[in-house]
Amino acid sequence: MSKTNAGHFFEDYRLGQVFDHATPRTLTDGDRALYTGLYPTRFALYCADSFARACGLPRSPVEDLAVFHAVFGKTVPDISLNAVANLGYAEGRFLSPVYPGETLSARSEVIGLKQNSSGKTGIVWVRTSGHADDGRTVLEYCRWVMVRKRDPLAPAPETRVPTLAEAVPAPGLVVPERLSFGAYSDVLAGAPHRWGDYDVGELIDHVDGVTVEDAEHMIATRLWQNTARVHFDTGARDDGRRLVYGGHVISLARALSFNGLANAQIVAAINAGAHANPCFAGETVHAWSEVLDKAETRRADVGALRLRLVATRGPAAPGDLRGEDGRYRDHVLLDLDLWALVPT
Amino acid sequence: MSKTNAGHFFEDYRLGQVFDHATPRTLTDGDRALYTGLYPTRFALYCADSFARACGLPRSPVEDLAVFHAVFGKTVPDISLNAVANLGYAEGRFLSPVYPGETLSARSEVIGLKQNSSGKTGIVWVRTSGHADDGRTVLEYCRWVMVRKRDPLAPAPETRVPTLAEAVPAPGLVVPERLSFGAYSDVLAGAPHRWGDYDVGELIDHVDGVTVEDAEHMIATRLWQNTARVHFDTGARDDGRRLVYGGHVISLARALSFNGLANAQIVAAINAGAHANPCFAGETVHAWSEVLDKAETRRADVGALRLRLVATRGPAAPGDLRGEDGRYRDHVLLDLDLWALVPT
Amino acid sequence: MSKTNAGHFFEDYRLGQVFDHATPRTLTDGDRALYTGLYPTRFALYCADSFARACGLPRSPVEDLAVFHAVFGKTVPDISLNAVANLGYAEGRFLSPVYPGETLSARSEVIGLKQNSSGKTGIVWVRTSGHADDGRTVLEYCRWVMVRKRDPLAPAPETRVPTLAEAVPAPGLVVPERLSFGAYSDVLAGAPHRWGDYDVGELIDHVDGVTVEDAEHMIATRLWQNTARVHFDTGARDDGRRLVYGGHVISLARALSFNGLANAQIVAAINAGAHANPCFAGETVHAWSEVLDKAETRRADVGALRLRLVATRGPAAPGDLRGEDGRYRDHVLLDLDLWALVPT
Repeated sequence: MSKTNAGHFFEDYRLGQVFDHATPRTLTDGDRALYTGLYPTRFALYCADSFARACGLPRSPVEDLAVFHAVFGKTVPDISLNAVANLGYAEGRFLSPVYPGETLSARSEVIGLKQNSSGKTGIVWVRTSGHADDGRTVLEYCRWVMVRKRDPLAPAPETRVPTLAEAVPAPGLVVPERLSFGAYSDVLAGAPHRWGDYDVGELIDHVDGVTVEDAEHMIATRLWQNTARVHFDTGARDDGRRLVYGGHVISLARALSFNGLANAQIVAAINAGAHANPCFAGETVHAWSEVLDKAETRRADVGALRLRLVATRGPAAPGDLRGEDGRYRDHVLLDLDLWALVPT
Repeated sequence: MSKTNAGHFFEDYRLGQVFDHATPRTLTDGDRALYTGLYPTRFALYCADSFARACGLPRSPVEDLAVFHAVFGKTVPDISLNAVANLGYAEGRFLSPVYPGETLSARSEVIGLKQNSSGKTGIVWVRTSGHADDGRTVLEYCRWVMVRKRDPLAPAPETRVPTLAEAVPAPGLVVPERLSFGAYSDVLAGAPHRWGDYDVGELIDHVDGVTVEDAEHMIATRLWQNTARVHFDTGARDDGRRLVYGGHVISLARALSFNGLANAQIVAAINAGAHANPCFAGETVHAWSEVLDKAETRRADVGALRLRLVATRGPAAPGDLRGEDGRYRDHVLLDLDLWALVPT
Repeated sequence: MSKTNAGHFFEDYRLGQVFDHATPRTLTDGDRALYTGLYPTRFALYCADSFARACGLPRSPVEDLAVFHAVFGKTVPDISLNAVANLGYAEGRFLSPVYPGETLSARSEVIGLKQNSSGKTGIVWVRTSGHADDGRTVLEYCRWVMVRKRDPLAPAPETRVPTLAEAVPAPGLVVPERLSFGAYSDVLAGAPHRWGDYDVGELIDHVDGVTVEDAEHMIATRLWQNTARVHFDTGARDDGRRLVYGGHVISLARALSFNGLANAQIVAAINAGAHANPCFAGETVHAWSEVLDKAETRRADVGALRLRLVATRGPAAPGDLRGEDGRYRDHVLLDLDLWALVPT
């Protein structure tokens, strides 16, 4: 019997099946430093303990997306090792800040299955949650992936397509306990634009660009212990290129969005996300945002902005997302729909 | 109104203007590890808590130049985003060691302004200070940059060229409180040569070379949250190359200088500095030093060496700095004038 | 007199000579994070404090091979700066886990000398030990290197070839104090295969591959303060390539071996090792293992597997190690013989 993990195939999944994923991971100041070195991030809450304390938190938490990547990485060996495509995200909510020294683990439940008409692949929907070692659930999200079948003749499971919210409703957003933007410093945060300054429909060009290196995306992807071979091995694709982990593009875009959204401190929810086109080393990632919605939260000093965050290959006109055929343009790498918390 | 930071232009600056720079930054053991991974540094005081304690410090401090980079990085969005050139440094003094866990912030005051004869650019002099969250000033230095005008027709401000010391006078050097080299171990530090073994005029070839990679200088530059586009984006220059942040060359040269100056433990002052030629990935950085001066300090066991630290592209003969026309030779990348503290 | 370290030459060594190596080094969570970013490692004991505590340890220790690299790096300036080849390892034992915050130092004793018949080089055998600042010896190993003579006419020292064990005998393996696999979770560790599931002679293909980047192996090698020029400077070899530090290949192979040996948590001994062929950036490292032996330890819940861990350039058939002439095949990079501790 082989002792290596060949991953699961579509016919291996069952509705309601639960995976307690391997490799719990203690996040530390070392991971934070690498995150800062790999992404041009400057959101003050995640840079300075003093700024975080002025916002009511005990110290500066780990970047929300680092938590997302760490949890996501754990799911790969069970969920997406044989994935053909990472199709989407929904109902992602950050439930509690994570601090250096905390250990995260991850669990996923299969909530949907649908074999494709070809009979060679199927779609698997999972709801994943991340947990700190004190029992707190810190993150939950759904994602769905297209997975190969081992045996095309294996019988298809009963189809179940879960109903997922188009977006996390604003009342479902979690404002971290004790967070207060009452003493928030625009000067230290780097920009004066607060929640009230953004209008629904507004487009923001984040201006800057970052050319991607293989060494960088591999270090990042390993940091989250995402082991999908296609990111590391030039022999994994016919063209000899290493595919950049989609989460690397997410973090690049989020970091670039500082220039225009410096006060969108906290990612509170991931409503939806599409990796529209693959990204490879040598390409220069730019980003733009669109304000999709605004909402109040249970705290008067904390507002929420629903943002479409788009990463592109090369600079691109904000708003230019899809062609006349309704498909993403070739230069679009990422179309991410998120809620951010912003001082009012 | 645009929400992105276009940076300031020459006509935006006023004498006496003060900038409290954004993004305070907590430095941690993670930053130290990255510094060690990015630069071939081996100065024992910054490598081992036990060595630092034997020298009277509570633990191993953050590398002096890491403190410099962290403070420098904060100033970029306010001072040098539209800089054509980083012209010089003066009166740089390290006033207090910084320890992992401390949060740094930065402030700059405009101390000089001079429009160039073209009318398209001007020189801005600032005095910058770095502060720990307990209120200590840990670093101060002056630098001057050539900045573009937004509007060439904008009126020139009154010219004021500040008078800056050619070098920090030896009595102005700060020996860290409680520092003692009384129990200093040459064996653990890696070389027997102490303050008395160096002569003014002595040239030291640091022998080793390091070939620069884009991934490395970008990680370093992001770590200090220096956001100047030219370091990250192959589209920022006509030749498609990413300019290596000058501070990366400074740290490379300082680290290389270990081989010949292993006991020059502490950078106490930056007297002057010129980025003589640009550096790009693929080039191999070498370094040599010249002993410019020697001085005693208030502590008998701590001497000071004034050193010219020169980084070159490829190996180069120590002392070969300028051509007959008085200009830096093409292979010279950096000409840095610093004071280091050395056991006597 | 030159102040730079030219390294020692063969005729400089004396039997019984002891080197207290320079640059003690405090290992931190930052080093751990970099280790995780540089190698695709997922052994749970080294990823999560919670997992380590469930195994009886106070927290997650630093990876065993990181300890090896840190100690090894210290020896380079004294032992192998003028080495032509790193010939072998023997009698390597990990004696005590190292935790973040501990400071390591290293000492070596010359235990063998043999001039080669050419008279231009000689072989130096050293026994090296690594020490924590509380006095614990955490690691010891022998290695031998071929070192150039400064002067071919210098007289040869008396030949002394030490007798070294072919492998560390199982009773000599150290099981960390308080380690217990009684509550070990296969689910969290990532695989169900325990000590009893492995058979002597069994071959395991670790499947995955990692293409090496110059930025990555240089960051790793600097992290351990290994200063051998050939790893960093494109001018050091005639072909302009930077040689990957052999220890980088060791750590890559060990990390890849997770896929098939996920429960081989602890490296307890290095019996032997050969860097069969050089490795360069752009090459894709794969790995396979052979179970050489099995042994019990003094603890009933902890077994030991003696493993041959082989790294190859590109994917390779497990077991295909040497040609008919008895020499390593060209695609073999590393042949490492180690003992690992595994739950029974």
